[in-house]
Amino acid sequence: MSASVVVGLDVGGTSTRATVVTTTGERLGTGRAGGGNPTSHGADRAAAELRTALHAALAGTDPAGVTAGVIGLAGAGRLLADPAGRDAFDRAWHDVGLHCPYTVHSDALIAYASGSPDPDGTVLIAGTGAIAARVRGLRLDRVADGHGWLLGDAGSGFWLGREAVRRVLADLDRAHRPGPLGVRVLTELLGHAEIAPRPRDTVDALVQAVTRRPPVELARLAPLVVDAARRDEPTAVALVGEAAGHLAESASRIRPPGATEPLVLGGGLLTGDTPLASALQAELRRRWPEAPLRRAGDGAAAAAWLAARDLPGVTDPEALHGLLVDPGLPLL
Amino acid sequence: MSASVVVGLDVGGTSTRATVVTTTGERLGTGRAGGGNPTSHGADRAAAELRTALHAALAGTDPAGVTAGVIGLAGAGRLLADPAGRDAFDRAWHDVGLHCPYTVHSDALIAYASGSPDPDGTVLIAGTGAIAARVRGLRLDRVADGHGWLLGDAGSGFWLGREAVRRVLADLDRAHRPGPLGVRVLTELLGHAEIAPRPRDTVDALVQAVTRRPPVELARLAPLVVDAARRDEPTAVALVGEAAGHLAESASRIRPPGATEPLVLGGGLLTGDTPLASALQAELRRRWPEAPLRRAGDGAAAAAWLAARDLPGVTDPEALHGLLVDPGLPLL
Repeated sequence: MSASVVVGLDVGGTSTRATVVTTTGERLGTGRAGGGNPTSHGADRAAAELRTALHAALAGTDPAGVTAGVIGLAGAGRLLADPAGRDAFDRAWHDVGLHCPYTVHSDALIAYASGSPDPDGTVLIAGTGAIAARVRGLRLDRVADGHGWLLGDAGSGFWLGREAVRRVLADLDRAHRPGPLGVRVLTELLGHAEIAPRPRDTVDALVQAVTRRPPVELARLAPLVVDAARRDEPTAVALVGEAAGHLAESASRIRPPGATEPLVLGGGLLTGDTPLASALQAELRRRWPEAPLRRAGDGAAAAAWLAARDLPGVTDPEALHGLLVDPGLPLL
Repeated sequence: MSASVVVGLDVGGTSTRATVVTTTGERLGTGRAGGGNPTSHGADRAAAELRTALHAALAGTDPAGVTAGVIGLAGAGRLLADPAGRDAFDRAWHDVGLHCPYTVHSDALIAYASGSPDPDGTVLIAGTGAIAARVRGLRLDRVADGHGWLLGDAGSGFWLGREAVRRVLADLDRAHRPGPLGVRVLTELLGHAEIAPRPRDTVDALVQAVTRRPPVELARLAPLVVDAARRDEPTAVALVGEAAGHLAESASRIRPPGATEPLVLGGGLLTGDTPLASALQAELRRRWPEAPLRRAGDGAAAAAWLAARDLPGVTDPEALHGLLVDPGLPLL
């Protein structure tokens, strides 16, 4: 039996990536475009970005010969419920000459599959928000947190940023000089780190600087916390430890003690060598000492793998994962 | 020397109260109107409410004979910085025939003075928001928290409501049935307490029900928590205990350990016989065993007392406080 060709798309808020591969593990092409989430960018803009990424990935491949596709998208459920969003994706698909059906999966499942081929496991994602999900038979099963900045996302970039500001405010209330992290937070928000003769004036200025912007922009302060923790700044180290505790607690809501299935870490705060990733790994090893820890990798390749693994002729999906998907650096 | 006549006004978000008294402790009149905060209601509406309250309080008194006035107002500093707000207050004052000067103080100072005549002490207020303030010579000195719902107000009505929803979400994540408080929160927000076959659907509905409204409306759930704590519901009791801990921690930012000056409790969550008031009293007694605990009382009378106490002929301000201001029920 000859190899089939499949397409994987990983649609994010800031970039869209496409990959075209064969069921025998050949990578035929990749493409990249700007953020393509119809919820945040609108259906037309999203469709245009998808087209750009797909067009590049399909260069040199006959789109009519493509057999299957998987699209990974945050809020996949909402897309399917929204005819305009669904229609935008259909149009992009057909505009580049694809005739095969495609399946939409949540970005959490794609992140999981980019770190492990095991049908069962847990994925823990921390970027601007934070979510944990249990995967069963490579389908999203139960989910914890992901409740948004107002009610949840404990341990996320938003959470780190908000808590960093809260520590500065507490210092000012106590008439303590903020430490190095506080100085960076003040500088980022006020343009300087001078404390007013009445510290309450600085408190008011700080609160106003935050509330003038959409709350979610507090996540922009998270890199300051991560950098400061890297330099062992005590407040930052404490915040990162708390964030790791929150993320592990979210995972524990859907993962029994002692479970041995893989744990995949995804999202900007967990895929790099960040202090938060290290703190979280220690926390996860404590709770689930037997579980392999893996890092989320190439989402578009994982989407393509999900499209390929059930096709006729694919006898060893795990081996195909090894060929197609950067298997997620095993963490330590 | 004959008695002077003074006016006190307590301007809140939902009601405005005026009191006319003499420096010898006679209460000449009171008046009441709707919310008169120029920041939330606009300058014209605020001026009209002030006029209504003052007019009623001055019935039977010659306004030209009034010697001094004090107005208590949330965000007093902002009013003074805003010419339109200041002008609205001036107009109301003159429209009812008052010629004397008046002083504007923050509602926190008024709350303090409504519970204690001691020039030095601490006031702790929890309603929709939460704030602690140190009073020195009957002037607001240092302040802790009051940072608003996004960054602070720890232990406030907003905080209690948000945490109550967070507990329900955590229960649903864990596939636990919410307890009695959770059932009331679900009913309040969704109109029913049925958990969907996929509990995540109930999670999504709950998050949407909250995020559809202004965040501060989470404070509307606080009475559910207070009621449930009264009936010893474990989740509610735990939340109330945490809230008390947060409020005491805010006070500790501005009040040294072992301080013996009065602690005045104000705001809707602390002036009634609520479980939060009891939990907070226990927490405060633990930290400041020697300090008298008092309850905030009649704000308009306290404002009038502040206007009177420095006038010639007032030789015993503390005795005058006893006559004019319900001296704050000593707590236990």
